[in-house]
Amino acid sequence: MIIALDAFGTDHAPLPEVEGAVLAIKENACEKILLVGKEEVLKKELEKYYYDTNRIEVINASQVVTMDDKASSSVRKSMKDSSLVQTILLHKNGLADAAVSAGNTGAVMAAALLNIGRIKNVMRPAISIHLPTLKGNTVMLDVGANVDCTPDYLVQFARLGSLYSQFFYKIDQPKVALLNIGEESVKGNELAKKTYQLLLVEPGINFVGNIEGKEAMKGEVNVVICDGFVGNVMLKTLEGAAISIFRMMKEQIKKDWIAKIGAMLSFPVYQYLKKKLDHSEHGGALLTGINGTVLVAHGSSNAIAIKNAVRFSARIAESGFLEHAREFFESSTSQT
Amino acid sequence: MIIALDAFGTDHAPLPEVEGAVLAIKENACEKILLVGKEEVLKKELEKYYYDTNRIEVINASQVVTMDDKASSSVRKSMKDSSLVQTILLHKNGLADAAVSAGNTGAVMAAALLNIGRIKNVMRPAISIHLPTLKGNTVMLDVGANVDCTPDYLVQFARLGSLYSQFFYKIDQPKVALLNIGEESVKGNELAKKTYQLLLVEPGINFVGNIEGKEAMKGEVNVVICDGFVGNVMLKTLEGAAISIFRMMKEQIKKDWIAKIGAMLSFPVYQYLKKKLDHSEHGGALLTGINGTVLVAHGSSNAIAIKNAVRFSARIAESGFLEHAREFFESSTSQT
Repeated sequence: MIIALDAFGTDHAPLPEVEGAVLAIKENACEKILLVGKEEVLKKELEKYYYDTNRIEVINASQVVTMDDKASSSVRKSMKDSSLVQTILLHKNGLADAAVSAGNTGAVMAAALLNIGRIKNVMRPAISIHLPTLKGNTVMLDVGANVDCTPDYLVQFARLGSLYSQFFYKIDQPKVALLNIGEESVKGNELAKKTYQLLLVEPGINFVGNIEGKEAMKGEVNVVICDGFVGNVMLKTLEGAAISIFRMMKEQIKKDWIAKIGAMLSFPVYQYLKKKLDHSEHGGALLTGINGTVLVAHGSSNAIAIKNAVRFSARIAESGFLEHAREFFESSTSQT
Repeated sequence: MIIALDAFGTDHAPLPEVEGAVLAIKENACEKILLVGKEEVLKKELEKYYYDTNRIEVINASQVVTMDDKASSSVRKSMKDSSLVQTILLHKNGLADAAVSAGNTGAVMAAALLNIGRIKNVMRPAISIHLPTLKGNTVMLDVGANVDCTPDYLVQFARLGSLYSQFFYKIDQPKVALLNIGEESVKGNELAKKTYQLLLVEPGINFVGNIEGKEAMKGEVNVVICDGFVGNVMLKTLEGAAISIFRMMKEQIKKDWIAKIGAMLSFPVYQYLKKKLDHSEHGGALLTGINGTVLVAHGSSNAIAIKNAVRFSARIAESGFLEHAREFFESSTSQT
């Protein structure tokens, strides 16, 4: 797999991208990386590392999309030579099997929509992430692309998530649940109630009903669907909860020297937990419904997170998810 | 303060309620408790305890509203002699300064709405809770009463939350924030964007802008407002996150005997954290906007949680919040 990597996405770009690319090659996360950005800067930075130079190619792009650029206007107008748009174009033009950027999610989505577009008949692409759960792998979508949804969008998210779970995780009949405030079918807002009824009769979807936030974290369903507003609030609450709990723990431990010794002894456990809850370990968010494999890594990614995102994108690209999603939606004439 | 306490709300009723009432009296959480439910059962249970018998009075109510009863129909029809409705009526009729129940939140809300009603000009009552934060006290509303909201409802929630923070916590100009998926004013769904604009021009509200879930947990704002669907998802995600993190920790600790010793030494820290994150320590949820002081405790409450809820309801009743909320809304003619 050849992966196009935007070298100017993270907060500390291009350092994590360059080191992450080298790590990815060393660990055989993919065959080759097209590292996109200011050529001189990248070549100079790459000189610091020892690696198979045939497997990282620098592609020049003179501009950078910053976090402050308004997502769509930035990619629409002046940013044609930005590292982000060039990364997307390499994938679009078949020179790369997937595109990875740690830039602003809105900008990446806009660039992907404008340059690659949606899978035919997909109404809205959705951002999918992996929930950190007690067991197994749970995909959740949408976590931010569509803040106002209709029931039809959510049914398509269910399909995309289901196909993803099926081909990426090799799960036979993925259990799909609707994020809601109670298990009963009558629970929830208008959107949830209407979506519930549609999912009940949607063929080929293993709909297991409503799920609450706390149940979702147990990891007993494979796909959780929700509108992008609620999904984003939930995702950020999870991040915040983990950070807050560790901080509270740290502060309490400071006050008590016996607990301090205890904490030192249990340090590997904290490390494991931090890793498990850290989104960077999950490799990034997939723009499901885009007619390509485009992955967004977190802006705060370090080299390891970038390496994971590269590996993750290669695994998705070879999973067959995209081809099967295309096949399903292109042959479904009921959708527009 | 005299508190009416539904003795048949919790999952293990009436044991936690009876013991909780005795504890509340022993700790002077209030002057007197009217314990509502099956007289014979309660009197027999109370005989097990040593306490000032003048300060707990049993009020007979022969029926019980179960979790399975559909909220509104149960209180509307046959449940007039239920412990829940009788508890609410004692408060309505001025025999108690506040009402506390650990029953189904929907049923308590329905009973309060039907028997006490809303403060004049309040469009929708909201469920308010205290967020467990790193510092200070943050009130969040609505966490489940109104799953489909209009911007006007949210502006009223902001007012209710602000008055609550002002009178209960004695905070001079409570900082009010809107739960959203980003800080910028253009972020969010239609509801959030419209509410943002209304709050900007709402007199007497110290609106500090949008807040994300993870920021809310830092406790730097006093009031967080949101629609009841999103609020409920966030609340349950927090609960789930805490449970999951502790469970993951436990499982990892089991695998490593050094970490096990460490965990034993840091045990007081875990206890502190569990307590801090445990909603029962926060005393319950207030039905803000109801023309009375009605508190819902968690169905899984133990005696200590019930005691805390009683204490909490007494503190709210004496805070002046209700009187000031009435004064504000009754004189606001722009609302219907």
